[in-house]
This record gives sequence, C-alpha cells and structure tokens, in this order.
Amino acid sequence: MREKKGILIVVSGFSGAGKGTLMKKLMQDYDNYALSISATTRQPRVGEEDGREYFFRTKEEFEKMIARDELIEYARYVENYYGTPKQYVMEQLEAGKDVILEIEIQGALKVKEKYPDTLLMFVTPPSAQVLKDRLVGRGTETAEVIDSRMKRAVEESQGVEKYDYLVINDDLERCAKEMHSIIQGEHDRVSRNADFIDDIRKELKEL
Amino acid sequence: MREKKGILIVVSGFSGAGKGTLMKKLMQDYDNYALSISATTRQPRVGEEDGREYFFRTKEEFEKMIARDELIEYARYVENYYGTPKQYVMEQLEAGKDVILEIEIQGALKVKEKYPDTLLMFVTPPSAQVLKDRLVGRGTETAEVIDSRMKRAVEESQGVEKYDYLVINDDLERCAKEMHSIIQGEHDRVSRNADFIDDIRKELKEL
Repeated sequence: MREKKGILIVVSGFSGAGKGTLMKKLMQDYDNYALSISATTRQPRVGEEDGREYFFRTKEEFEKMIARDELIEYARYVENYYGTPKQYVMEQLEAGKDVILEIEIQGALKVKEKYPDTLLMFVTPPSAQVLKDRLVGRGTETAEVIDSRMKRAVEESQGVEKYDYLVINDDLERCAKEMHSIIQGEHDRVSRNADFIDDIRKELKEL
Repeated sequence: MREKKGILIVVSGFSGAGKGTLMKKLMQDYDNYALSISATTRQPRVGEEDGREYFFRTKEEFEKMIARDELIEYARYVENYYGTPKQYVMEQLEAGKDVILEIEIQGALKVKEKYPDTLLMFVTPPSAQVLKDRLVGRGTETAEVIDSRMKRAVEESQGVEKYDYLVINDDLERCAKEMHSIIQGEHDRVSRNADFIDDIRKELKEL
C-alpha cells in the first residue's frame, strides 16, 4: 500500500507574487488540500473573520499556546505574534490531506528543521520587472512603499536556495496546475514510500 | 529565463515491471523525450536492428569507445559489454530533450555519481505477487527461470533507496502520465534553476 499520509507544504514567495490568489485557486480546483490558518495577536482588519483569515488570540492566549508547544512555528513582528497551530495541521495530514502553510522564509526554515519531510515551494513572478509593475499597477501603494517592497524582495530572494521548488506565477490557472502536479509527484518520492518498499521486499522473499 | 537544458533520467525496475512498454508509451504520448540507445557486443537477436534496439559493436570497437571515454557508463555481463554512448545523450540534453536511460541499478548509480543532477526513477509492479503472476502468465518461462527472476528482484530491491522516485506500474496509461508529471515537476527544482534565480536577484537590485 502506498503512503496515505499527507505532505506538509510551505509556500513562500515575494510579496506581490500572487501567493494568496494562487492558494485560493489550488483549494478551489483540487480537493486534496487543506490550508493551515495562522494564529495572531494582531487586531482583525475590517472584513476579517476569526477562523477564516486568522485565529485571533490575545497575547496571553498566544503565550499559553507557546508554553504548551501547540504551535509548529511562531514569530513576533513588531508588537504581534504570528504562528501556526499544530493540531489542525497534524489532523489533516493524518487524514491524508496535503496541508499548505503560507509563511515567510524564516518560518519556513523552522518548519523544515522540525519536520524534515516538509516540501518548500517558492513562488515568483516571471521577472523582477513584472513584480514592480504589479505593485505599481495596484495604484494603492506610494513610491516609498513600492521601494521598500522591492528591497524586501531582495532580502526574500536570499533564501530561495533552501527551497525545493521554484514556481513561476505567470498565469494563475497554469501555475496552480503546475503546483498541484509537483505536489502529486512528491508523493512518489522514494523517501516517502519506505513502508511500501519494506512490504514488497518482504513479500518478494516469501513468494 | 528558465533552464532550457533537458534532464538526464535513469529508469530502472524489477524485470517484469513493464519498463519497456512504459518507455514506449512515454515516447509515444509526449514529445519532449529522447530514449538513449545502448551499445553492446552481444549478437543481434532475430528482429533486432542496429541503431534501434542496440548499437551492435565488435569487442574491439567497444573497447575503443571505452578508451576514448565515449561512454557514460558500461558494464560487462558474462562475455559481453553493454554501455551508454555519451554523444547522443549530450546532444539531446543540450537540445532541451529529457533523455531516458533504461539501465539497471549498478549502471544507474555510476551515472548518478558522474552526473549528480541525474533523476533516478524505479518502476515497480503494485506488489510482489503481481510481479510473479506476470512472469507466470507469460507462459514462456520455466519454473526455474521464474524462481531466478524473483530472486533477482530481491537483489534489485536492495538499491531502491538510492532512487529519487518510485513509480507503481499498475496501469500503463496512468503510470506513463505520472512519470511525465514527475519529470515536468523536476524542471522546477530550485537546484535546476540557478540561472533564473541569479537573474531575478540582479534585476531586483537594479530596479
């Protein structure tokens, strides 16, 4: 029998690479995924719902989760905590779902260290120019914000080599399909099929 | 720009796993593959053609190829040499084709050592019982041959952990599609896209 457990997948990428839309598309088009929801202590923004965008928690609640080792990873930005609750992820993996965490590189590497089987995927626009054009095109960002985003992208690009796959988001539909195909292929990795190999080896000797 | 070079792929598997038919199907259904043809000093069998099943060479010719380093790998079985001519493989890779070598495990590991980017795929039937049934079902093999094939399969299974992917050949069409999907996904490996990463990094700094 093949391994039935799901794969833990971390998706990172440049701000402006279209990760959010891509994840939505992936969840829409295929039914073997579960998207992990982060917990945070920051205030909900207008339109955000507890348990949909984030689990909104108080600082005290969040620190209890840390103390009880209930988070796969967490980080503190400015005044707020962000983290990935463990229970939901583990339940979904056991149920055979491939679970996607959308987190940035530091978090990604922490997860990989703790769970070496984690698949790391990095989403990029086809070129830096396209990234800039997208940010400018939104029309909502000041020149300074765009500039700081581009600088941040330079930093973000430093970690790419630690990732397993690089996915170019040139077209939403095509890119979602490609990610799905990569993840499906990963299920066939020899390292993810130790049980099957043990079984066939035993059976071969007995026949 | 994405890496345009092809991937070198070694396909191995149990005798009776259906590798040959699978490779034919893959070549038929997709046009980005080139199948490497081995050179050998053994006599052509009835129906075999030089340059189709094998390049048939004399022992002297073969040893010249060895001396000139014209083979990616070679081995000697009983009285005959078998090897993979380098030139055709390299030409096809440069032209962007994914090149498939169908060789056994010792050869596979030699290729991987020489070309670490090589993708190793192992083809297996769904179970040892299916493998035995297929051998029995052919109706052309004696009990002894079947027995020796099963023993050989035990040996062949010892190297599986060195491979990258394990592909279960339960259905020809499905399996060929799965292999194709895995190989396509491999083109997105971060390690195969160093040039793209360098380029976007440079561009990000300049914009």
